[in-house]
Amino acid sequence: KINGDRLWDSLMDMARIGPGVAGGNNRQTLTDADGEGRKLFKSWCDAAGLTMGVDEMGTMFARREGTDPEALPVYVGSHLDTQPTGGKYDGVLGVLGGLEVVRTMNDLGIKTRHPIVVTNWTNEEGTRFAPAMLASGVFAGMHDQDWAYARKDHDGKTFGEELERIGWKGTEKTGDRKIHAYYELHIEQGPILEDENIDIGVVTHGQGLKWLQVTLIGKEAHTGSTPMPKRRNASLGMARVIELVHEVAMDYQPDAVGAVGHIDVYPNSRNIIVGRAVFTIDIRSPDKDVLDEMDTRIRLGIETIAEALDIESEVEQVGHFDPVAFDPKLVDTVRAAADRAGYTHRDIVSGAGHDACWINRVAPAAMIFCPCVDGLSHNEAETITRDWAAAGTDVLFHAVLDTAEI
Amino acid sequence: KINGDRLWDSLMDMARIGPGVAGGNNRQTLTDADGEGRKLFKSWCDAAGLTMGVDEMGTMFARREGTDPEALPVYVGSHLDTQPTGGKYDGVLGVLGGLEVVRTMNDLGIKTRHPIVVTNWTNEEGTRFAPAMLASGVFAGMHDQDWAYARKDHDGKTFGEELERIGWKGTEKTGDRKIHAYYELHIEQGPILEDENIDIGVVTHGQGLKWLQVTLIGKEAHTGSTPMPKRRNASLGMARVIELVHEVAMDYQPDAVGAVGHIDVYPNSRNIIVGRAVFTIDIRSPDKDVLDEMDTRIRLGIETIAEALDIESEVEQVGHFDPVAFDPKLVDTVRAAADRAGYTHRDIVSGAGHDACWINRVAPAAMIFCPCVDGLSHNEAETITRDWAAAGTDVLFHAVLDTAEI
Ligand SMILES: NC(=O)NCCC(=O)O
Ligand SMILES: NC(=O)NCCC(=O)O
Repeated sequence: KINGDRLWDSLMDMARIGPGVAGGNNRQTLTDADGEGRKLFKSWCDAAGLTMGVDEMGTMFARREGTDPEALPVYVGSHLDTQPTGGKYDGVLGVLGGLEVVRTMNDLGIKTRHPIVVTNWTNEEGTRFAPAMLASGVFAGMHDQDWAYARKDHDGKTFGEELERIGWKGTEKTGDRKIHAYYELHIEQGPILEDENIDIGVVTHGQGLKWLQVTLIGKEAHTGSTPMPKRRNASLGMARVIELVHEVAMDYQPDAVGAVGHIDVYPNSRNIIVGRAVFTIDIRSPDKDVLDEMDTRIRLGIETIAEALDIESEVEQVGHFDPVAFDPKLVDTVRAAADRAGYTHRDIVSGAGHDACWINRVAPAAMIFCPCVDGLSHNEAETITRDWAAAGTDVLFHAVLDTAEI
Repeated sequence: KINGDRLWDSLMDMARIGPGVAGGNNRQTLTDADGEGRKLFKSWCDAAGLTMGVDEMGTMFARREGTDPEALPVYVGSHLDTQPTGGKYDGVLGVLGGLEVVRTMNDLGIKTRHPIVVTNWTNEEGTRFAPAMLASGVFAGMHDQDWAYARKDHDGKTFGEELERIGWKGTEKTGDRKIHAYYELHIEQGPILEDENIDIGVVTHGQGLKWLQVTLIGKEAHTGSTPMPKRRNASLGMARVIELVHEVAMDYQPDAVGAVGHIDVYPNSRNIIVGRAVFTIDIRSPDKDVLDEMDTRIRLGIETIAEALDIESEVEQVGHFDPVAFDPKLVDTVRAAADRAGYTHRDIVSGAGHDACWINRVAPAAMIFCPCVDGLSHNEAETITRDWAAAGTDVLFHAVLDTAEI
């Protein structure tokens, strides 16, 4: 068994960095707070005798040597960056759970044949710089690194500049590492495990996602003196698209979800018809065909809406991953580890995207979920219990022991 | 006849202060640019021999003495503040047209029995600090001055602080002045005069307005892993309200308009269900009963929408004025002045709010419109011709001559 109290203390220590406004965290990627969080994590890795490598995307790899110099490492990890109004556990649990696994091995004097690498992937959340899971995506060869460096935040700062600024641009070529297996522990971020009172989710699949950034161009004009038929109202167009996204998602649920979380209108004045609305549609499904159908329906719908209102529309895909099936052998290992450690478990599909979804393309990968209160995540009020965290980390420990070979 | 070239030069000189991004202006109220614009206006008033008074709301009153010490002044003016993406003429024409009237009187050695006061009302636009026509509203006793001082901009700065900061908080008690008559020259901001090829709009009425600031409170949650039925999606609620506002306005048009120009969503992250949406509804009608009916229907609709989505709603009225009928005698004077000066004219209803709407409550007031290209206003591309500006100012000149008595 891992040390649940030590794990919890580390979670709480990390949560002190980049506090939010309502008890959670705002430690967005490549901010000063992210830099501080990385420093704290590195100090813990140093103390645990791990060697730190950093790649050109800023991803941190903390290595515990194995006994076989030929054996490829088993990777464990997740991300330390948070949403602007994020919780303390989303991502952090997977990184610090990985750290707790090696700390426990150190305590117990366990040596493994394969090295173990605790990983902190850069920019998993994707809020500051779209898309999400950016560094693991570059690692897996899904994105070009220069394209990633050129991603811009709301203020026009680029990922590349900000990575240099906080001092975490490493020299290791991204994606050069070979991975024996990758395990990611994460909170479920959905309500199933808690509702069914189950300790562990054995993640078999992850649903696919598309982020469609829509720009509607109308015409700025006076809200009072412009006759209704003369208006080219981009906010009205946006309203109709938001409703459309909801309708389409409802048509396919429970096998689909859809919403618009990001909205900027210009010039944003009470008495000016909106001349430009920029917003991002988030649609997801575990079924690739459904996701593609939703995409098609929404794009067609946007054209119809724009035409009716005499406005222009552009749609840019700013994020995308297909549904994934995790490695069956590793999934079995997780299931067996949960049994061995004595926890109730069930198979589950991830509603969120994770770095494991990209790593699964270049190495066997699997995930372990633990419940979170009310299924709530991407909210500062996100909560888990100490026991849930410990149970998930126990299962991670047993799965890693199995795969890394004692 | 006034000097159309001098007027135009002054308009162009003022437009150099607080340039926009697309050829127009961003000289929002109580910004540094507003301060600069005021300084330039004052230097012109000084040169024209006018005496400047400034009241506690920062409104500027530039006085040309009359021959009768007992006679109350005739006021002319409008506002020098602009929208964030505003044109060069909205408001500015009325102030500099007023200045041109006294410059012409100076040129021609005309003396009037009543003094003439050229006025620049503070914060007419209402974008930075709602409501619009704030200073004229306090002047007319419609708002409490301390309430006005406490109005906040998007960054939380108050009107009172910003007025002191730019150095234009005067000592004169707001509303103490007695007004013999008030004339305001303004661009139409709508398409009627240009469409009908008419020089002058004789403004008989102004439509009423309500600004309803709506706050919808849902629950921040993950866009991927939160099941559709569990969502409390404030952006979806907002979309439905925007559509509702449009529907209600369409039901009453052409005697009503409605739109949502201001929208802020929180936390504004692509993968977080919107937890809070704050936006402002702008509805208008020349008919008070219609305006009230729209208000009632929209408030009821918001409740229904919120209930269906399990979100909370709050509606705060942040701006309001009833439809106005301008002073019949002054309106006649404007009509006669247009005839005398040889311009085509028609009666017209103002679609926008103006300082004249408030001043009309405490003194006889009337307005003169000149056309603007394509009816476009609250857009940096707003344009008028030199001839239109000169014609409007000619009519203002003749109306003032008549009322101020030679
Ligand atoms: N786990 C998680 O919240 N990742 C962010 C990417 C997503 O929106 O799914
Ligand atoms: N004239 C003008 O645009 N005033 C601003 C107030 C309004 O929105 O009508």
